Amino acid sequence: SPSPSPTAVATVGPHRVSEIMAYGFPTTDYVRSRSDYVLAYDRKNRNALWVAEHLTAERLLDRTKVSRKLSAFQEDQSVHPYFRSTNEDYRASGFDRGHLAAAANHWVSQDSLDETFFLSNISPQVGVGFNRDAWNTLEKYSRDKAKSNRSVFVMTGPLYLPSLEQDGKHYVKYQVIGPNSVAVPTHFFKALLCQSATGEFHMECFVMPNKPIGSTIRVTDFYVPRDMIERAAGFLLFEGLPRSALKTMNGRKV
Amino acid sequence: SPSPSPTAVATVGPHRVSEIMAYGFPTTDYVRSRSDYVLAYDRKNRNALWVAEHLTAERLLDRTKVSRKLSAFQEDQSVHPYFRSTNEDYRASGFDRGHLAAAANHWVSQDSLDETFFLSNISPQVGVGFNRDAWNTLEKYSRDKAKSNRSVFVMTGPLYLPSLEQDGKHYVKYQVIGPNSVAVPTHFFKALLCQSATGEFHMECFVMPNKPIGSTIRVTDFYVPRDMIERAAGFLLFEGLPRSALKTMNGRKV
Ligand SMILES: [Mg+2]
Ligand SMILES: [Mg+2]
Repeated sequence: SPSPSPTAVATVGPHRVSEIMAYGFPTTDYVRSRSDYVLAYDRKNRNALWVAEHLTAERLLDRTKVSRKLSAFQEDQSVHPYFRSTNEDYRASGFDRGHLAAAANHWVSQDSLDETFFLSNISPQVGVGFNRDAWNTLEKYSRDKAKSNRSVFVMTGPLYLPSLEQDGKHYVKYQVIGPNSVAVPTHFFKALLCQSATGEFHMECFVMPNKPIGSTIRVTDFYVPRDMIERAAGFLLFEGLPRSALKTMNGRKV
Repeated sequence: SPSPSPTAVATVGPHRVSEIMAYGFPTTDYVRSRSDYVLAYDRKNRNALWVAEHLTAERLLDRTKVSRKLSAFQEDQSVHPYFRSTNEDYRASGFDRGHLAAAANHWVSQDSLDETFFLSNISPQVGVGFNRDAWNTLEKYSRDKAKSNRSVFVMTGPLYLPSLEQDGKHYVKYQVIGPNSVAVPTHFFKALLCQSATGEFHMECFVMPNKPIGSTIRVTDFYVPRDMIERAAGFLLFEGLPRSALKTMNGRKV
């Protein structure tokens, strides 16, 4: 069953990947299955393409067994050296090493927490005002949703959005950092698929610019249409869930 | 056998894909197998990621059975509408609809020729000085190689290369055109893996900027190291061929 009951024991057992990916793989290339999240890697940009998580209240409750101090950012040895990002890429870049699968979502075991520090799960994020503020607020919001629902499926990833320049044309432009040319995404998306205690599905889609935004935000100010993310990211979100199964999108009846 | 003898009948039968891809799939996501080429599509950029061809003298000889006038640029119906490029995207853009698998490489049947006009095999290219000149010269060079070898495996694709800006930082910047935001690649690569009549392997790697270059070029002025393409494109070239099997790279003994 893709939706374990809230009384199920919190595990990261052999069926965890099929639970996390219950509503489909957005892409199937260069996928990495960790104990508590699943990731597809974008070798060209040295960032993840998408990261999938499945949050439940019971997995978020017990924070006594693990310690973030034991975790360290480390290269993902499963990524070919040509395409791997390293700590050296981030050094003196001015950017934080921002988690896509948030560390605080994976305290179910020390291994699960440690795996969120693989650099394949990390993107260059503006620190003050974004990673430490607005984006963190959105991560907390996701965990709150997990506590008030049966479970929440989370898709997170970088975007590289075009903008209109003075010559009247549209350009995609983004910085690359370090010896491995790690892309600095212009934006990040997060899509939440919440299944309520009664089994209803509710979806929310967010995009935030990789800029200082601050922490006193209303996350709902960052709602975007689902297809805005899909077109820009290059894949469909939760394709395996019939669109008719959704009760609400961004808080509105569909 | 991945290397049909030059006396084999030119066909596009059921084993054609395994012939074309004899030395490995660079990526495995959103792959499309046509009768005489194989393509992986980059849904985010609405361009191919790579296109693979396998050229032999006998497939290039008989040009009487088909006509380019019967072929028309058409949307690739196998690509989801969110990610599909259209003729409308190119209209008034100033860019040519440039083939990646070259039309003149696929005269083996009218169907094979027509399939090169699917817009998934097309990228926005500068017309005068590039598509109609330098890039065309490189395509002719590839066909000449097929005639002087047992066969040639060709990998072609777009690149989006960073450049140093005045602030001392590196940026990737490229235009996007049309309602579907089709990316205009900054460069294109082509890698040739030639197997000689005696069975030896020789590889050549080229990158050209998507700019007016002219037609009176020496293609060998556009040689690049193999790993330059691999790092920038985000995949390995002919990974299935042991690197020790190469006799020469860009004309030099390895
Ligand atoms: Mg963070
Ligand atoms: Mg052309």
